[in-house]
Amino acid sequence: MAANQVGRQTITFGILPRLVSMHTIVGTLEGKGPYGGYFHEVLEDDLLGQKTAEKAERQILENAVNEALRKGGLVPQDVQYYISGDLLNQVISAVFSARSLGVPFLGIFSACGTFAQGLGLASIMLQGGFADKVMVATSSHYQTAERQYRYPIELNIQHVPTNQHTVTGAGACVLATEGEGPKITHATFGKVVDMGLKNPNDMGSAMAPAAFATLEQHVQDTGRPPDYYDLILTGDLGRQGLKMLHVIAEKKGFALGSNLQDGGALIYGNDPKVGAGASGAACSAVMTLGFVATQLYQGKLQKVLLIGTGALLNQLTIQQGDSIPTVAHAVAIEA
Amino acid sequence: MAANQVGRQTITFGILPRLVSMHTIVGTLEGKGPYGGYFHEVLEDDLLGQKTAEKAERQILENAVNEALRKGGLVPQDVQYYISGDLLNQVISAVFSARSLGVPFLGIFSACGTFAQGLGLASIMLQGGFADKVMVATSSHYQTAERQYRYPIELNIQHVPTNQHTVTGAGACVLATEGEGPKITHATFGKVVDMGLKNPNDMGSAMAPAAFATLEQHVQDTGRPPDYYDLILTGDLGRQGLKMLHVIAEKKGFALGSNLQDGGALIYGNDPKVGAGASGAACSAVMTLGFVATQLYQGKLQKVLLIGTGALLNQLTIQQGDSIPTVAHAVAIEA
Repeated sequence: MAANQVGRQTITFGILPRLVSMHTIVGTLEGKGPYGGYFHEVLEDDLLGQKTAEKAERQILENAVNEALRKGGLVPQDVQYYISGDLLNQVISAVFSARSLGVPFLGIFSACGTFAQGLGLASIMLQGGFADKVMVATSSHYQTAERQYRYPIELNIQHVPTNQHTVTGAGACVLATEGEGPKITHATFGKVVDMGLKNPNDMGSAMAPAAFATLEQHVQDTGRPPDYYDLILTGDLGRQGLKMLHVIAEKKGFALGSNLQDGGALIYGNDPKVGAGASGAACSAVMTLGFVATQLYQGKLQKVLLIGTGALLNQLTIQQGDSIPTVAHAVAIEA
Repeated sequence: MAANQVGRQTITFGILPRLVSMHTIVGTLEGKGPYGGYFHEVLEDDLLGQKTAEKAERQILENAVNEALRKGGLVPQDVQYYISGDLLNQVISAVFSARSLGVPFLGIFSACGTFAQGLGLASIMLQGGFADKVMVATSSHYQTAERQYRYPIELNIQHVPTNQHTVTGAGACVLATEGEGPKITHATFGKVVDMGLKNPNDMGSAMAPAAFATLEQHVQDTGRPPDYYDLILTGDLGRQGLKMLHVIAEKKGFALGSNLQDGGALIYGNDPKVGAGASGAACSAVMTLGFVATQLYQGKLQKVLLIGTGALLNQLTIQQGDSIPTVAHAVAIEA
């Protein structure tokens, strides 16, 4: 197995786990963006009539999970594991959705890179013969993230241009060893990278080096040049982080062309209200399961590398003067 | 593979992943308890001279990881994955230890059941051929947990008898396909269980049904009666939760004898200052890698079932009136 060899981090999946069923839900703002038509469901009320945003987020996640099952003609008992995490303290949205689903639960956390970590882990469960169907899901919500990481939205704090806007939404998918759908061919789990940046209002710049490190490792391990992929979708660096990634790549003599895009930079288009674009664990999930999967099904894309990036900070680390550790996990998906 | 069969949740490991190297560190209070002599290192200063308890916790975790490597004659590059999580928001102690270690990082979360989840996942990585060495580690700290979940210790809030005292400490181990050491034979990942209990000062009672559900599933899947094991070590139910587990088991016609013990009920002995005993992600890690592993090495125990239990709440869920979801993951360890 490739991952065993010194200096290599990439796993090659021989059985090609497939994304056989999926569902994405986004909030009103995400629905109005240029990718709105790719998402399976756009909310009319980001609170779903719930009393708190936290209860709304978990409801959105549960709805995505239930729809992913339903569309696959599956019941919970058909799925051996539920792999989920989110941005909230103690991955609480994932926990409550696991309670509803009633399937053995593996809680994970890589901040906005959680979805990619989940796809990689699910593929391992399938490749290793530990399961034939695994559910992976994640969520985020603008209001819950603002309240937890920054300030309640009622305070109307002014944002800076490098701020990213947390996506309201959820993505859920069933990976299986049999069935039709895009195939997971490789996973490259990343190391934690910390270049000493401390600005929680510019997480894109902090995460860009992690994205590059994982991309470079993936290219080295697989022998695939970056232009092997029709699309390398990072998420979520935002516009600022994407710019930094291009700068780092160029310095290292790495040609990254227009096939490099970032989910956070894309999802809101040029809406000036959202700073440098989007972030949030749901962002790369809905862009992958909404946009990318559709393009793969339609043959408009053939080979995609998802690089899920996470800024692994919390409120206390910022208050205590720590820099921001980051991570990036890559998953190769083919039509 | 057993896990594929409907109604079964238990994985049987054919290659028998081994605990080849380990290190445990505990705080002063844990060192004074009846199991103090089993831990590899007892702190004289629970803050390690750090300015904050959060920085101390991550230092303890890093020290445990480094010692586990050193004792195994290993360098970080020998280990393909680092699986870690802890109780702090965004598993931040795990994150910082991953930054220091520099090995591909899989962040996980099951509250105090995190260590058992990690052992199970690491065994999957080894069994599936995705790695030949994996590091699993976790930590907790009385002061960081009190501050985050309840009140800063400076406020000297009075505790109730069903409160549990968070263990200060860390446990780290290397699992490998080759080498000498206790073997992991099975893993049973649990479903999230919630019986509607809402008292964050009695998490033991909330977790007991999850512990029973996973034990019952494990017994059913493996055909092993509970007395197959010399020791079934839950963690951490505390004395109250352990009592509840006996009550539930008896009602279901399940004979649980004196081979059922709880790490949280044991570690402080009869110290009246700690309420119902211990909790904290580190508790089951240090009891397993300190006490259990030593007993297995010495032949005093032959077959042990670790059932790591987690109360999956956060501060907001309690404030918003939610009940406490819980989970339990079981790992069978043999001499």
